[in-house]
Amino acid sequence: MSKRKRGAAAPPLEPVAGNGLLHRRALLGSSIMFAGALTTGSALNGAAAEPLKEPEWSLAPGEVTPVLQKPSRYEANVVRNLSNPKGEPRTQHARTPLQLLNGTITPNPLHFTILHSGIPDIDPEQHRLIIHGMVKQPLEFTVDALMRYPMVTRKHFVECGGNSAPLFSNEPVQAPVGLLHGLVSCAEWTGVPLSILLDEAGADPSAKWMLAEGADSLAVSRSVPMKKAYEDAMIALYQNGERIMPGNGYPMRLLLPGYEGNMNTKFVRRIKVINQPAMTFYETRNYSPILPSGKAYRFYFVNEVKSFITRPSFGQKLNGPGFYEITGIAYSGSGTITKVTVSADGGKSWGEAALEGPVTPKAFTLFRMPWRWDGQPVVLTSRAWDDSGAVQPLRADFIAQRGVTKEPVKSPLAFPNNHYNSLTSWGIDAKGEIKNVYV
Amino acid sequence: MSKRKRGAAAPPLEPVAGNGLLHRRALLGSSIMFAGALTTGSALNGAAAEPLKEPEWSLAPGEVTPVLQKPSRYEANVVRNLSNPKGEPRTQHARTPLQLLNGTITPNPLHFTILHSGIPDIDPEQHRLIIHGMVKQPLEFTVDALMRYPMVTRKHFVECGGNSAPLFSNEPVQAPVGLLHGLVSCAEWTGVPLSILLDEAGADPSAKWMLAEGADSLAVSRSVPMKKAYEDAMIALYQNGERIMPGNGYPMRLLLPGYEGNMNTKFVRRIKVINQPAMTFYETRNYSPILPSGKAYRFYFVNEVKSFITRPSFGQKLNGPGFYEITGIAYSGSGTITKVTVSADGGKSWGEAALEGPVTPKAFTLFRMPWRWDGQPVVLTSRAWDDSGAVQPLRADFIAQRGVTKEPVKSPLAFPNNHYNSLTSWGIDAKGEIKNVYV
Repeated sequence: MSKRKRGAAAPPLEPVAGNGLLHRRALLGSSIMFAGALTTGSALNGAAAEPLKEPEWSLAPGEVTPVLQKPSRYEANVVRNLSNPKGEPRTQHARTPLQLLNGTITPNPLHFTILHSGIPDIDPEQHRLIIHGMVKQPLEFTVDALMRYPMVTRKHFVECGGNSAPLFSNEPVQAPVGLLHGLVSCAEWTGVPLSILLDEAGADPSAKWMLAEGADSLAVSRSVPMKKAYEDAMIALYQNGERIMPGNGYPMRLLLPGYEGNMNTKFVRRIKVINQPAMTFYETRNYSPILPSGKAYRFYFVNEVKSFITRPSFGQKLNGPGFYEITGIAYSGSGTITKVTVSADGGKSWGEAALEGPVTPKAFTLFRMPWRWDGQPVVLTSRAWDDSGAVQPLRADFIAQRGVTKEPVKSPLAFPNNHYNSLTSWGIDAKGEIKNVYV
Repeated sequence: MSKRKRGAAAPPLEPVAGNGLLHRRALLGSSIMFAGALTTGSALNGAAAEPLKEPEWSLAPGEVTPVLQKPSRYEANVVRNLSNPKGEPRTQHARTPLQLLNGTITPNPLHFTILHSGIPDIDPEQHRLIIHGMVKQPLEFTVDALMRYPMVTRKHFVECGGNSAPLFSNEPVQAPVGLLHGLVSCAEWTGVPLSILLDEAGADPSAKWMLAEGADSLAVSRSVPMKKAYEDAMIALYQNGERIMPGNGYPMRLLLPGYEGNMNTKFVRRIKVINQPAMTFYETRNYSPILPSGKAYRFYFVNEVKSFITRPSFGQKLNGPGFYEITGIAYSGSGTITKVTVSADGGKSWGEAALEGPVTPKAFTLFRMPWRWDGQPVVLTSRAWDDSGAVQPLRADFIAQRGVTKEPVKSPLAFPNNHYNSLTSWGIDAKGEIKNVYV
């Protein structure tokens, strides 16, 4: 049966909130003509009856098929932003260009990475994972051994605890989404549930923590609650179907869905079951959210509910009044996104966006909202809810608790603080130019 | 709350079907020790108390982060198989190495492609999509214009009508899964529902067909029922979040979920609304399933329900008796996979596999089945069902209807016929070596 319901009533085209936000289903699944709603397809005039001019690529055979495809040369700008392109002896950040993407999957070449001592070139035949400490029987696993275990496949985002840090600036930093929020990506991960390996080793039921350590030269290590280890942790071997990328932890990484990226130990070489947190460098200093009092949260693992609009956004330009689709990403480390609202008047009125399904926990959720721009200045913003009851805090409330910088932040690559999850707003002027603004 | 249910009863480890197939949930979500069920993690003996030898990559900083990640050099074998690597003036096939992948997503570099006249190098600024024919108002769209339209994001496989053709051989062709079945891949596609564009052009409700034509130098074209165009067709602009690959149709392609690949017109440049099928080259000859009588189906669009085991499979080797996970892919162009059964005794007894959720329509569905191999010869096979009521036919039934070759097929790259969707079986001998067999 065709899903076309000829003549079926469609949701009205009257705005559901200020400044032209339309009902989220206004243009989908209906068949009536929206005269005037869409203005972008150009009517063909008589000239189209002339023979079409054939471009050169339609006149001769094209290029030879390669063993590995890569994007068109016309997409050469779709790359990650590098904070340390020469690999000087400090951390290297590579941010995902989210403003150029549209989907819930981040292609592996574009998945964000943070490396504190470069990317180790690990021979998978030599790599070992050891589970030891408070266990009945310490175990050692090769990659081949792990490949025989039961696996699970789950789509999850991974986000750096320092993502969105420029939003702590007292004045808005002008930069594209990828620089403001590009330390988050989403992939389909496949690996062995950690619970199976811990059970096989006979982990002591009284143990409350484990220490996970990587095979990189810094041996980056973090303490993880055993509760999380049994809940949904995995030793991931595949990323979007293929073996995981070197910068994402090849040949294996710990995946802790919804917990800040640094805890998802890359190149994981040992898991030690322990009684109390090890208080390693990265859990005591680097990723601690600092409070206005100067104190810091002791442990703060979850990436809290967040959303931002990727289109339109800074660096893009609206090409005149008329219909646009507002698109963005929402996600939460504490559950499944249940609702995203969008405002075109800086938060005075809100309309509910459509969510692309199936919506799954701790994964990118796309939201979409039809919008007719009248050409006047507007402020677009979004707000997300999850099924744990968490809601993205309004900026005034967030700042009251977490503070802002005293001086404007100069660079979007700076980290004045961690765990920003309040709103991001885009101010659009009458020329269609877009700036980061606070509301 | 932790999901660990300490002491909770787990499904029994007794086989659910012949030759060691275990209950699909035997090893997941339970916490009791499966003494002897897993034999692959090596117990650490006293020697492990000696200082661990540090490999070189743990002793010095690693490599510099690139703008685009690529797989480890140890994964250099994970590439597509090219049928025509020099690009001679004939069709070029690139097959996905499914036996090396594990997930529902095919990474874009590895998505299968078939090009009949090479890959056109299309400038997206110059490309146009025209909708004309039986419409009130012919329309022309630039990429920028389409980017303003409402979009949808859907995970769907695309499969060549000729995929799995070696299985029509009267004798089993010995080749890995990627050569037997690698003309199918699965991606998350984002684009504009075609129904919106047809509505805007004012397509004549009495029109039954449309002709879709590509901008490649062959102008590959196919007739598509208007019913399908309104059901779930889209003009796809993104593939797994980034702009679609040149070999998959950059800058835009028609996506017809579940309809054979060739109909999903790449580089789509025009859609003409028409009254009857155009009977183009590819719909009248190339992809027609030939019947034993010598006649052919006139139109045969849907990729029917199919499944195959990717691990273990030809080219891999079992490393001794004990626990393994059987993994495979199922999909159907006529709906959503509801069940996959696995047999380890060549079809005498069957156990139900676990499906990785969320299971979505017309998309790769992973199935997994725990298995304890006793070291004796076995024959593994799988069979899939979908929610339309379709079931993967047994080979004897399929052959009776569709036939086999009179002589053995020499190459897995040959196409003796189209639309094979019967079983694939792997015979494993006492050495753990794996062959393609018929049951």
